[in-house]
Amino acid sequence: MTTVDPTLKSFIEVHPDSHFPIQNLPYGAFRRNPDSATHIGVAIGDQILDLTALSQSGLLDTPLLAGRNYFGRGTLNFLMAAGKAVWTEARETISTLLQADNPLLRDDETLRRAAFLHQDAVAMQMPVDIGDYSDFYSSREHATNVGSMFRDPQNALLPNWTWIPIAYHGRASSVVISGTDIRRPVGQTRPDPEKPPVFGPCRLLDFELEMGFFVGPGTEMGQSIPLEQAIDHIFGMVLVNDWSARDIQRWEYQPLGPFLSKNFATSISPWVVPMAALEPFRMAGPTQNPEPLPYLRGETRRAYDIRLSVTLRGEGMAAPATISNSNLRHMYWNICQQLTHHSISGCNMNPGDLLASGTISGPTPDSYGSLLELAWRGTKPLEIAPGETRSFLQDGDTLALSGYCQGDGFRVGFGEVSGRILPAVQ
Amino acid sequence: MTTVDPTLKSFIEVHPDSHFPIQNLPYGAFRRNPDSATHIGVAIGDQILDLTALSQSGLLDTPLLAGRNYFGRGTLNFLMAAGKAVWTEARETISTLLQADNPLLRDDETLRRAAFLHQDAVAMQMPVDIGDYSDFYSSREHATNVGSMFRDPQNALLPNWTWIPIAYHGRASSVVISGTDIRRPVGQTRPDPEKPPVFGPCRLLDFELEMGFFVGPGTEMGQSIPLEQAIDHIFGMVLVNDWSARDIQRWEYQPLGPFLSKNFATSISPWVVPMAALEPFRMAGPTQNPEPLPYLRGETRRAYDIRLSVTLRGEGMAAPATISNSNLRHMYWNICQQLTHHSISGCNMNPGDLLASGTISGPTPDSYGSLLELAWRGTKPLEIAPGETRSFLQDGDTLALSGYCQGDGFRVGFGEVSGRILPAVQ
Repeated sequence: MTTVDPTLKSFIEVHPDSHFPIQNLPYGAFRRNPDSATHIGVAIGDQILDLTALSQSGLLDTPLLAGRNYFGRGTLNFLMAAGKAVWTEARETISTLLQADNPLLRDDETLRRAAFLHQDAVAMQMPVDIGDYSDFYSSREHATNVGSMFRDPQNALLPNWTWIPIAYHGRASSVVISGTDIRRPVGQTRPDPEKPPVFGPCRLLDFELEMGFFVGPGTEMGQSIPLEQAIDHIFGMVLVNDWSARDIQRWEYQPLGPFLSKNFATSISPWVVPMAALEPFRMAGPTQNPEPLPYLRGETRRAYDIRLSVTLRGEGMAAPATISNSNLRHMYWNICQQLTHHSISGCNMNPGDLLASGTISGPTPDSYGSLLELAWRGTKPLEIAPGETRSFLQDGDTLALSGYCQGDGFRVGFGEVSGRILPAVQ
Repeated sequence: MTTVDPTLKSFIEVHPDSHFPIQNLPYGAFRRNPDSATHIGVAIGDQILDLTALSQSGLLDTPLLAGRNYFGRGTLNFLMAAGKAVWTEARETISTLLQADNPLLRDDETLRRAAFLHQDAVAMQMPVDIGDYSDFYSSREHATNVGSMFRDPQNALLPNWTWIPIAYHGRASSVVISGTDIRRPVGQTRPDPEKPPVFGPCRLLDFELEMGFFVGPGTEMGQSIPLEQAIDHIFGMVLVNDWSARDIQRWEYQPLGPFLSKNFATSISPWVVPMAALEPFRMAGPTQNPEPLPYLRGETRRAYDIRLSVTLRGEGMAAPATISNSNLRHMYWNICQQLTHHSISGCNMNPGDLLASGTISGPTPDSYGSLLELAWRGTKPLEIAPGETRSFLQDGDTLALSGYCQGDGFRVGFGEVSGRILPAVQ
């Protein structure tokens, strides 16, 4: 029986709409209160199984886990570095402990009191110490939309795009956990090209609907990761919101790419979904034409059917409005191609490095992954409530991304990543 | 008597050409052998004063230093975070201990044996755990040269360049210490725009003559550093070689900037020269026209008169050839403007972040800071020895950057940062 068997049940009750059935078992980091140590846990239904606490029971002392303290270090980096055999053993061990027909944990009231807590009772923390963060640009639809708007609709894609999984280095220090408020950035823009630039709060603040993965075992400088081995270097995935200041970006980005327009904040969802949980939802990606160069050519079933949605809630709104529905399957360059390309130069990769997808836009206007595209550069404002429109984000807005895979009677989900916009510092 | 008084002498003999007189006292990290712990020290002449060892004597237990273990952590990050009052006290304490007329350390043979070692006897280590690395583009001459070559000689500078200290996020994981061999990267290039790109070893491998500074006390996300406070957030400087694969860069860099063309390696010199040691060499920078926006406007004496040189030695050459002489004073945007600009978006800065200058080219062809410029895109190969020419780096080449400030009878120097090119992995 595999850990993603749809018939598996836990003794912890899980609603069919829950993102966290026993088939998922994502890892996260949390604190019970501001003064307590950061623990590692897995989400199950609306509960957390506290692995840091459970470790003391000896129930996690399997051959590959015993004595390694994978769940007592406050972050997942050491577990990420350990590699697939350890990941598999940890997952199977935890899955077995949570199964409905296993009395070991189920019937131990003392242990259950120590090891389970409600998700609402904790503050989620950054699960990973991110050494380096890179952001790709792997949605053909997004690159085409942006190219159409800012360059030439007839030649929207630059010539390198279909050959290279284009990416840039992002800012690791400002990757924050869901729920962190986002301060509207200030900076230089040049609204009138005939006049000098001006300084002030960003006027065109945007989100980007992305996903990202964490690197597992790393490489030494000078090494690279062959495509067929790439999947073994990928631990799991999260939702990513790459907050973007479009007006700052437009003025600063040539010739070295986005800088201040991106580095004020990037938000991630708190639960890292292991690749093993996503395996049933793996599928063929978009046809790649031209055929990639040999180092990027291999298994094409490396897309994942992950349904993504975006909601926006203005300060006065009773409920969030859904403004986009997309899917990770639209991504042209897959995660293995991204990782292989990133390392091909000999760039050393480290456990916990975050590689994000870039904006995941689908083929239709209601599946675009940014306000820039959804409102088409401000020309088609979105109605998000009666009398309430948006072309870009306003102060007080809360933007949330959500995502899940639909299984047969269960969902493997990512929860959400949300952030509220605070006014700029004056 | 200040720590940069030219008349100060140490009881450790220092040659007038040495980069490390008592007026300098740069910090570094080293190991005595591969199995030993990393210690922190300061360079003095051809010696190192081992501060980790010296700490045990109690001689460093001054009010601000006692009990803080600044020199026992293997990196300088904690000292960097401590701020200017601690830096000043540490520097004055070490300077006093090393002065010729102070018998305390001078006449204690046992302590001297424990605390001094020859620089040749150690392996220098990365002195800082670099969280994020950003690279600027702050030499007007360099930006003009590159713009002339690849865009339009009549409009070589892009419109944003004179308004914004342009920068991009670099790769922190591949910042390495001087002496680390550099593997020639492989990657995609497109030598013939009429044909598909090709894959293979970089053919146009280059260096970039840069300097960089380390951030001291950091900021929280959403905060920024006003220009007049920026200098208090800067700990010290190093030489930086931003190795660059020009053919990979040309094909990949649009629209998000350089990625694999830079992330295979960046080398730094091992000794971090404190800003206090550079203070006598502070001077007015180039006139900035147009006048910068108010947040970048302030003290103009923020350039530093640091003489920079580049040597190149092919495998068979008896001695290195000097291929460039430049000076940090040419840099248009100064280090305070760089730091203030970087943080103005609210991007949080951390102790140990590295901000590099970008290529420092001077106004004359013999002062350019890259082979791309020195050999003008291969059109003017450099003769580096009889019958030996270079347009770009060859396997086996050793490239070294050096730099110092010339005082009255002494030099405050950076030593060098060197690296040898290894053939590409096939």
